[in-house]
Amino acid sequence: MPLPRPLKPLAAIGALALLLTGQVLAEAPGLNGELRGTGDLGVVIERASGSVALVDTTRREVLRHIEGFGDLSHASVKFTRDARYAFVFGRDGGLTKLDLLTGEIAERILQGGNSIGGAISQDGRFVAVGNYEPGGVKVFDTETMELVIDVPATYQRPDGSTAQAKVVGVVDVPGNVFVFSLFEAGEIWTLDMSRDEPELTKHRDVGSMPYDALITPNGRYYIAGLFGEDGMALLDLWHPENGVQRILPDYGQNDYGQGEQRLPVYKMPHLEGWAMAGNRAFFPAVGRSEVLVADTRDWSLTNRIAVHGQPIFVMSRPDERQVWVTFAHPLNDKVQVIDTQTLEVIATLEPGDSILHKEFTPRGEHIWISARDSNQVVVYDTRTFEELARLPAESPSGIFFTHRAHQIGL
Amino acid sequence: MPLPRPLKPLAAIGALALLLTGQVLAEAPGLNGELRGTGDLGVVIERASGSVALVDTTRREVLRHIEGFGDLSHASVKFTRDARYAFVFGRDGGLTKLDLLTGEIAERILQGGNSIGGAISQDGRFVAVGNYEPGGVKVFDTETMELVIDVPATYQRPDGSTAQAKVVGVVDVPGNVFVFSLFEAGEIWTLDMSRDEPELTKHRDVGSMPYDALITPNGRYYIAGLFGEDGMALLDLWHPENGVQRILPDYGQNDYGQGEQRLPVYKMPHLEGWAMAGNRAFFPAVGRSEVLVADTRDWSLTNRIAVHGQPIFVMSRPDERQVWVTFAHPLNDKVQVIDTQTLEVIATLEPGDSILHKEFTPRGEHIWISARDSNQVVVYDTRTFEELARLPAESPSGIFFTHRAHQIGL
Repeated sequence: MPLPRPLKPLAAIGALALLLTGQVLAEAPGLNGELRGTGDLGVVIERASGSVALVDTTRREVLRHIEGFGDLSHASVKFTRDARYAFVFGRDGGLTKLDLLTGEIAERILQGGNSIGGAISQDGRFVAVGNYEPGGVKVFDTETMELVIDVPATYQRPDGSTAQAKVVGVVDVPGNVFVFSLFEAGEIWTLDMSRDEPELTKHRDVGSMPYDALITPNGRYYIAGLFGEDGMALLDLWHPENGVQRILPDYGQNDYGQGEQRLPVYKMPHLEGWAMAGNRAFFPAVGRSEVLVADTRDWSLTNRIAVHGQPIFVMSRPDERQVWVTFAHPLNDKVQVIDTQTLEVIATLEPGDSILHKEFTPRGEHIWISARDSNQVVVYDTRTFEELARLPAESPSGIFFTHRAHQIGL
Repeated sequence: MPLPRPLKPLAAIGALALLLTGQVLAEAPGLNGELRGTGDLGVVIERASGSVALVDTTRREVLRHIEGFGDLSHASVKFTRDARYAFVFGRDGGLTKLDLLTGEIAERILQGGNSIGGAISQDGRFVAVGNYEPGGVKVFDTETMELVIDVPATYQRPDGSTAQAKVVGVVDVPGNVFVFSLFEAGEIWTLDMSRDEPELTKHRDVGSMPYDALITPNGRYYIAGLFGEDGMALLDLWHPENGVQRILPDYGQNDYGQGEQRLPVYKMPHLEGWAMAGNRAFFPAVGRSEVLVADTRDWSLTNRIAVHGQPIFVMSRPDERQVWVTFAHPLNDKVQVIDTQTLEVIATLEPGDSILHKEFTPRGEHIWISARDSNQVVVYDTRTFEELARLPAESPSGIFFTHRAHQIGL
């Protein structure tokens, strides 16, 4: 953590400035005592310690480790549209706003009992949080963190009684709309925040137990995975009047069941990691050591690529020429790279123990990979596969860079 | 230009700090005396006055007008990977580095006689400038602005003598490679900066007088327009061994000449404005009031959409649902919007006089349009077409937002 300029003299100047002007300038020195752009910053979730490593992708350095985020055992992050603040969604229902320039927590609230993620609206004004307990979505003002609207995920059970469902797969789409799924209810809801009175639309009977979802990079197709049956639920947000359709009918725990022996499903794959490359979608099989390829024009399955283990995150390099794959326990010791033209595995890397997540730099020249049990984040050149850096981090998991602020659904 | 905090007291503090520590802290107060993220900043070229308007896309405000950029009559802009600095390429060969946080020129050199644009390498280390006079490319270190390599665009004339060609269509592609075209030579060159000794590769006889070029968003296809003949030159950068191929054989000044009366060609269209939406490319006809549509899988022409005038910039909203079109003089008083599904013109706007350029906010909720002779930049909601703001600018032309720092080829 090299700090190129000493912080103390600058802090002293801040105090002096305060005396002279009556204005608080405590912020002025910034993280390293200097102004800096926020385009090459990022955060790494340190899950065991409830802390976050603030990183610089140009110098490939950890700038600071920041504590006080609560339970980060399954955390995710969204950035404000100015790329100054990161909202960290914690498992304990905590919503924490981190100032990337001062390296300090700007605000933290406990908004629910058990949050699994959220999204920031297209216009940057609202942050939505999806909650397991109590089930629902709460929307806050990104600036003031005041509650704007509380949407309980209330649904009717077959016996006529009502209950609240766990909310999963919260994303933002164009038009200042949030989309999310209700696990127990088997419903997909959209919440339109562009109106003075937010408008809720419910799609019922989309399938049994949607457990996660993805949004295509253009924000058009919302696709939810189903835990209770095979196939996936697709909502075309350009044509919501068409309702929710079923695609990839054999996809799921019975993944194209052809009588072959299935692996035990230790972990359902993350769907947000689906890789789109041209007309191809690359995605993780469930309980099988395969990456599947579908044609996005008709969502038909076209290829199955044999890989090291059951894939968890299948992510496309920004130029779509490679797809990088991480795997479920106990085979989470390797990362594989698939060529999107030949569909062949062209590299197998061993960054460390318990590989959890990865993130490409915005233009794809590097990839950062978290090796939880090695307490390291490893940086590779994606063209030469050369290892460029190993950075210290406490049980690192999710890695998120600020360019996500500018991408639909991220 | 509201400046929320007075600058003078802060400047005084800076001077005092210098006295106390011997360190120059002139930067510390920043543009508005406060730290800020750089994700929602942008610049508007003010062509007549050689100045730049620094803008905030969240508050929809001009933060400051900055002078001293020389001749900006055909200027373009690239951002550093930290999104702190803008490199402005001026017609007078000036290369100016603007600090978006202080609102001041960090450095300015006259690197050539007549520059038309440039690019920043994938890793952010190099800025390449294409020059008309003398013809060639110069590459500088983005941090120090020291010359790294000077590549004269020397070619052989039919009579065996050598000359230097004007360089156009400079872009960056993955692998830390710059690609550019030589107008008089009819050549496309690639300059690989990933090696200790930069490697130059020449593709000869690509067609007569390439005048501009575009790179597809994934950085794979480099497509140059030809002034001297019809058709376009396509280089597949994933397979440079295949050489340069000809596509859209009738495209150009004889644009699918079917005996119809052609409009006079006042201005060749900008190619960098090509819109990609799914498998469709939307692009300007030459000398005809049409937007053309090609299938990017085989580059065949599929549709012709009648529009208000000869298109100049044809740009896709980030979610690919709309394409926005500006027009050549004398019909540059309107902007039209095409629905990418129905291929119909769904809106015609009149932002002001002499519409020159436009830029979407990163997630596409707004568009900023420069009306040169109205001395205004007009901001619209892209969903409702409601006018949101009119900002003062001196003869505004190009508009560039910082999210470009994170996109291949932008």
